Amino acid sequence: MATWPQLEVILVRPRNPLNIGAAARAMANFGLERLTVVDAWEPHWREARSAVGAPELLREARETAGLSEAVAECTLVLGTGTQTYRRPEQKVVSLPDLAPLVRQELEQGGRVAVVFGPEKHGLTREDLSFCHVLVEIPTDARQPSMNLGQAVAVCLYELAGRGNDGKSQVAERGTAANSERLERLAGLIEETMLASNYSPTLMREANRHDLRLILRRLGPTEADTRRILGLFRRILWRLRNSSTSDDERI
Amino acid sequence: MATWPQLEVILVRPRNPLNIGAAARAMANFGLERLTVVDAWEPHWREARSAVGAPELLREARETAGLSEAVAECTLVLGTGTQTYRRPEQKVVSLPDLAPLVRQELEQGGRVAVVFGPEKHGLTREDLSFCHVLVEIPTDARQPSMNLGQAVAVCLYELAGRGNDGKSQVAERGTAANSERLERLAGLIEETMLASNYSPTLMREANRHDLRLILRRLGPTEADTRRILGLFRRILWRLRNSSTSDDERI
Repeated sequence: MATWPQLEVILVRPRNPLNIGAAARAMANFGLERLTVVDAWEPHWREARSAVGAPELLREARETAGLSEAVAECTLVLGTGTQTYRRPEQKVVSLPDLAPLVRQELEQGGRVAVVFGPEKHGLTREDLSFCHVLVEIPTDARQPSMNLGQAVAVCLYELAGRGNDGKSQVAERGTAANSERLERLAGLIEETMLASNYSPTLMREANRHDLRLILRRLGPTEADTRRILGLFRRILWRLRNSSTSDDERI
Repeated sequence: MATWPQLEVILVRPRNPLNIGAAARAMANFGLERLTVVDAWEPHWREARSAVGAPELLREARETAGLSEAVAECTLVLGTGTQTYRRPEQKVVSLPDLAPLVRQELEQGGRVAVVFGPEKHGLTREDLSFCHVLVEIPTDARQPSMNLGQAVAVCLYELAGRGNDGKSQVAERGTAANSERLERLAGLIEETMLASNYSPTLMREANRHDLRLILRRLGPTEADTRRILGLFRRILWRLRNSSTSDDERI
């Protein structure tokens, strides 16, 4: 079986060291290498890492203080968790249907992260705003919520273990912009909103959230993002320097 | 999702109560009802059954003193476990290829059992002699052996969960903006480009063309388009009404 250096797992605020260990083990089972843990609770995190038989990838896991940093290099971020109690703001794709999309992204040189939330409550609305797509594992309505270690195993089985044959027929569309670029773009658009007095202070938080969602849903390529950044930089410069008349020089 | 009264799980000599609980939970997640435990070690078995939150199917599990009795009613018995160190005596089928066989058997009124061995050594040669087929979960050769609870989850996902619902609710992403709206947006962005002196005259034709392509590829919804129009109207207004003499003339 192939290994999957460009496919990674991110655990957000995991609590139970056994679950962290189980997630790492499933990664090793399905040939993944990179694990990131966001805002881990230190004692449990230490316990998980030092457990007997912990796979090497667990000992070498990255730690970040927020999901934004964790997904910075990723071009496709998949959020997991039961959608039963929440009205999703992103596209929801059933796990079996997701494999071809993931494979395509990997083949085009992208980096894909599968993000799992804390055991009790799952990913927050803000966590999910960093995700392009929400994954739905088809479970029984009477017991929809899976154990964390088992959910990781099932997702990785589908995305990495199960047949590498899924042939995708979607057209070439260029490399997707990674999350860091999308954040930069969101930041610049926000600055422009401020500079043009677009939104009342009260709305800014909501606008930031929506902006993040919209950019991920639209999924601009790296090249698109470069152009849009260029346009907004220009606009912002003009808004800030409108009293001078040296535009011609640029 | 459908339930699967004719598909069952058999745990042979399981040791860890957490694994027993995890197996039961995965069964509940994927709509199975009947669990049988063979030669359970009494103290751990009791602990697993009485655990807080143990699903009902665990409390109602059958106990038998041997695998032979456990599989008595079954028409198709699937043995699990890594085959790496053993020369199989039965047909080995990769898990992804197994689902159609299982479905066919169930449709024909058969009863199918998936049998899992003890954590440490898996099913014995004698255990396997009660199996029609050996299941192989496609795992990485360097870490082929899965945790029991995770192996149950992955098998049941494939055999009962996957392909059972199929319909990814193609997300609530709102009505796509029609071409007229996209043209209006493109026009407004172009005006903004001019007002901010973004592109040299020579490039304008090419930029207009690219803008049209990009907007269609990104495929904003009607609601997205309304918001982006709002932002650009605001920007344009600001660019044109910002004191300087030059801007007015553009």
